[in-house]
Amino acid sequence: MTPQPPDVPTEAVTGWWETDVCDIAPDVIRLRGYPIEQLIGRISVPGMIWLLLRGDLPARGQAALLERAMVAAVDHGAQAPSIAAARMAVTCGVGLNSAIATGVGLLGDVHGGAGQQCMEVLAAIRERVDREAISVEEAVEETLADQRAAGRYMPGFGHRFHRRDPRRDPLMAAVEESTRHGVVDGAFLAIGLEIERRLSSGRSRPVPMNIDGATAIIYSELGFPPELGRGLFVLSRSIGILAHAWEEKKQGRRIKGPIPPPLLPAYRGVPARDVPAGQ
Amino acid sequence: MTPQPPDVPTEAVTGWWETDVCDIAPDVIRLRGYPIEQLIGRISVPGMIWLLLRGDLPARGQAALLERAMVAAVDHGAQAPSIAAARMAVTCGVGLNSAIATGVGLLGDVHGGAGQQCMEVLAAIRERVDREAISVEEAVEETLADQRAAGRYMPGFGHRFHRRDPRRDPLMAAVEESTRHGVVDGAFLAIGLEIERRLSSGRSRPVPMNIDGATAIIYSELGFPPELGRGLFVLSRSIGILAHAWEEKKQGRRIKGPIPPPLLPAYRGVPARDVPAGQ
Amino acid sequence: MTPQPPDVPTEAVTGWWETDVCDIAPDVIRLRGYPIEQLIGRISVPGMIWLLLRGDLPARGQAALLERAMVAAVDHGAQAPSIAAARMAVTCGVGLNSAIATGVGLLGDVHGGAGQQCMEVLAAIRERVDREAISVEEAVEETLADQRAAGRYMPGFGHRFHRRDPRRDPLMAAVEESTRHGVVDGAFLAIGLEIERRLSSGRSRPVPMNIDGATAIIYSELGFPPELGRGLFVLSRSIGILAHAWEEKKQGRRIKGPIPPPLLPAYRGVPARDVPAGQ
Amino acid sequence: MTPQPPDVPTEAVTGWWETDVCDIAPDVIRLRGYPIEQLIGRISVPGMIWLLLRGDLPARGQAALLERAMVAAVDHGAQAPSIAAARMAVTCGVGLNSAIATGVGLLGDVHGGAGQQCMEVLAAIRERVDREAISVEEAVEETLADQRAAGRYMPGFGHRFHRRDPRRDPLMAAVEESTRHGVVDGAFLAIGLEIERRLSSGRSRPVPMNIDGATAIIYSELGFPPELGRGLFVLSRSIGILAHAWEEKKQGRRIKGPIPPPLLPAYRGVPARDVPAGQ
Repeated sequence: MTPQPPDVPTEAVTGWWETDVCDIAPDVIRLRGYPIEQLIGRISVPGMIWLLLRGDLPARGQAALLERAMVAAVDHGAQAPSIAAARMAVTCGVGLNSAIATGVGLLGDVHGGAGQQCMEVLAAIRERVDREAISVEEAVEETLADQRAAGRYMPGFGHRFHRRDPRRDPLMAAVEESTRHGVVDGAFLAIGLEIERRLSSGRSRPVPMNIDGATAIIYSELGFPPELGRGLFVLSRSIGILAHAWEEKKQGRRIKGPIPPPLLPAYRGVPARDVPAGQ
Repeated sequence: MTPQPPDVPTEAVTGWWETDVCDIAPDVIRLRGYPIEQLIGRISVPGMIWLLLRGDLPARGQAALLERAMVAAVDHGAQAPSIAAARMAVTCGVGLNSAIATGVGLLGDVHGGAGQQCMEVLAAIRERVDREAISVEEAVEETLADQRAAGRYMPGFGHRFHRRDPRRDPLMAAVEESTRHGVVDGAFLAIGLEIERRLSSGRSRPVPMNIDGATAIIYSELGFPPELGRGLFVLSRSIGILAHAWEEKKQGRRIKGPIPPPLLPAYRGVPARDVPAGQ
Repeated sequence: MTPQPPDVPTEAVTGWWETDVCDIAPDVIRLRGYPIEQLIGRISVPGMIWLLLRGDLPARGQAALLERAMVAAVDHGAQAPSIAAARMAVTCGVGLNSAIATGVGLLGDVHGGAGQQCMEVLAAIRERVDREAISVEEAVEETLADQRAAGRYMPGFGHRFHRRDPRRDPLMAAVEESTRHGVVDGAFLAIGLEIERRLSSGRSRPVPMNIDGATAIIYSELGFPPELGRGLFVLSRSIGILAHAWEEKKQGRRIKGPIPPPLLPAYRGVPARDVPAGQ
Repeated sequence: MTPQPPDVPTEAVTGWWETDVCDIAPDVIRLRGYPIEQLIGRISVPGMIWLLLRGDLPARGQAALLERAMVAAVDHGAQAPSIAAARMAVTCGVGLNSAIATGVGLLGDVHGGAGQQCMEVLAAIRERVDREAISVEEAVEETLADQRAAGRYMPGFGHRFHRRDPRRDPLMAAVEESTRHGVVDGAFLAIGLEIERRLSSGRSRPVPMNIDGATAIIYSELGFPPELGRGLFVLSRSIGILAHAWEEKKQGRRIKGPIPPPLLPAYRGVPARDVPAGQ
């Protein structure tokens, strides 16, 4: 049998799970120090997201701007693999929680990471402006040149489907208004607009900001670190995933594959052959 | 090679993925018919949840009541397996989306299903009142007797930890207020309070409504079907899952097991033995 | 702050994670009591599966029969939602482990549960034979009649695609041979063949045993409980999921939806409309 | 409504899901061209893994070496987060498939990636020997120096718990024997042993090869690309995950957190405070 230490202080065990988020005791639940019974009715869902992630209550304008970004990104249709996979999951006989987990699991570096990556570039440009004491225009120009040289595209800009993403204008208008009211300082907005201007200049087909770029600007303005860009996107897109999973459930299909029968995936491998005798 | 049908109408393929939720075209995104650019700034996150799940916009009082229920259920500490597993996931080197998927995946029938099950009982009691033309008191009494006879406990009531869940009172007060303003009709509230009264009568330790019961009453009053009780809980608890996963990420531990080293799970199986020679 | 008990015995913490499966100590790993260094090279993968699940080493014939069932179920093509979702996951920028988790997660009650459900019916029939002291023929007849009356179909029999599943014959031949050699007693084989005979009698299109039925017979003969029927299927199908995920990875597509662009899911919801002014 | 192309060739739809792995037609299932009915009984589970991943049948010695590596890595106890999370999942009321998905999902870059990373380093060293026409000793020395300079540790070597991992010796003995029989060429074995020798030289506590390093050598010798190192580890560890999940299921606990009640995670955040009036 495994030798175990004869005794450990309780604190060593409970401290393995230390947290600043939630404190519970019998009849008491406090989130970041605030009693839950005071939060219910006084705080919105985005306000609660802010509180749990940031440690304190948002100003009203901050929560409102966060809400717009989250509303904007809830859904982009069932051809998105996250949505399609969640719909397929439902038809396989799992609970809605597993269907949502399936969809959320697909929001990886490629499908869910562009916002996070855009936030990293925005932060790097802002830092470059400060560090090199250059203008936003210069910092954007140099950064885009660096990216082209490295063979990387600019995350958060360009869309295979939309020429001008309909979510761009209302979101940028909201950031402008928030800047005017002093809710945010507008530095990331300026960087984002300059990126957009420069990417599109001299091109017949412009490379507009997409939803990842627009929300990256908002989350950056609000002071979220890049990794939480993906986290916030997950919370937002979970809403669309649930709606699609629920619709699929009501449609009632069983074991739904990607294409309708009698269609089958195209087989292009080696032709039929026998297992050799010696095997 | 697999024989394939020579030709299928496009509609048979696109119709395999039919949806009422989202309509997209170049430069157009409409959710339940509404253009996304009109929704941004005019609709709250709970309002968007309602729209996507129910097909139309909520009245203001409906969205506000939904918001309270969702705010209430975001977190109950890291000893919940959904939260703990998400925190462990982060230390294993996966993205925040995978960590959230891990936590959400654990909100199964037992950990995430009590609200859904409570909604089913509430609906059955309401139907019994109508069908048998009896009072709420009688319907509750009979239903609880049936459950006792079947060896089942009443989901949504009782708590191993809290004597009186601090989320109960503000949520029930909100339903009462919503009933007074005609936002909901109060029928499920009456049923829930009668269940609570009867479960606690004559007991030294009452069996109070817990968060699953309180949110079940709200979601039932708002007209959600029971299965969406779990869906809404998932959206709400995802917020706590993200907050804990992010906190764990910042703490920086790698490959975090449930108990701190040098502690090991207790082995109670067969003692050491040799693989027999013949194997 | 939460009050904590001042001290707990180490055993209460380590005993929370008690296990009979694995015992480790520095430089020691024992599985079910056997040292890992003795198992490597003497035990096959199916043998290890048996050891960990059952607690001791299989007889050689048992491991060989288990191996055939597991080999048979590895893949049935990319139109299966478990495979398709795993392939889509890979294109979203997650690791192969997340892609496999996605596919495995879809092996729920409907997509992965038929074997388990078939094992439950087989066990119920065997029990009926003993309890009611009737013949297998009678017990099968009564059970199928009960199922028809309840509106249920017989899990593990019938296939939308194959008239005779090519995996049926080699698997049933293996059970017959194992019965002749005394590895298994053949009782579940007899029940399964009688179900197949009766379901097909008098029909122009027979209702043959499918892979779920064939493996259910084998796992039942080997003494596995029904729930492990699903567990073993998951291990087996994981192999196909990995192979498809890896192939997709090499193909290099990004954010692969279920149908190729420019196809879009068919929108059939309410037509375009404006958000009302009052919102 | 979305405009759709009026017609697409069937091939464009089925070709979106092209595959070399599996070909099915009514009554026909072929894996990599071989009919499934010929594979059942003639091929082992590791042989099937090889066939699906590599495209053709392994030589007998290749399958046997693969089997040893897979047997070795099935389990290392319930303190591993992948195992613990799967056990917790079972207590939350999800199917065994979801429990396995939970565990597998945690085998990310940190918990499941060391083997893959070790294979990448082994491949780089082998390439360096060829490219720079230097000895294995020199290539290892330079590579380890590069890693130290970059602040990276050598994946696959060293163990926090075992001084000498009991899986190392039988696995290395198997590679040596396979080399003598010409099954593999032994180049990666030589590199791995040289890494081990050099890491440990002059140290009081050696830095021995661990299970990730030992299996990385085997998978590299067998010609698998590094990413499949993780894939094979997932298949292997799934066996332990299932065994633990099943044991937990039989123990019957509900909603199992990481530490036993009455212990709670240690709260170290801001003390209790009121929500400010203006909110």
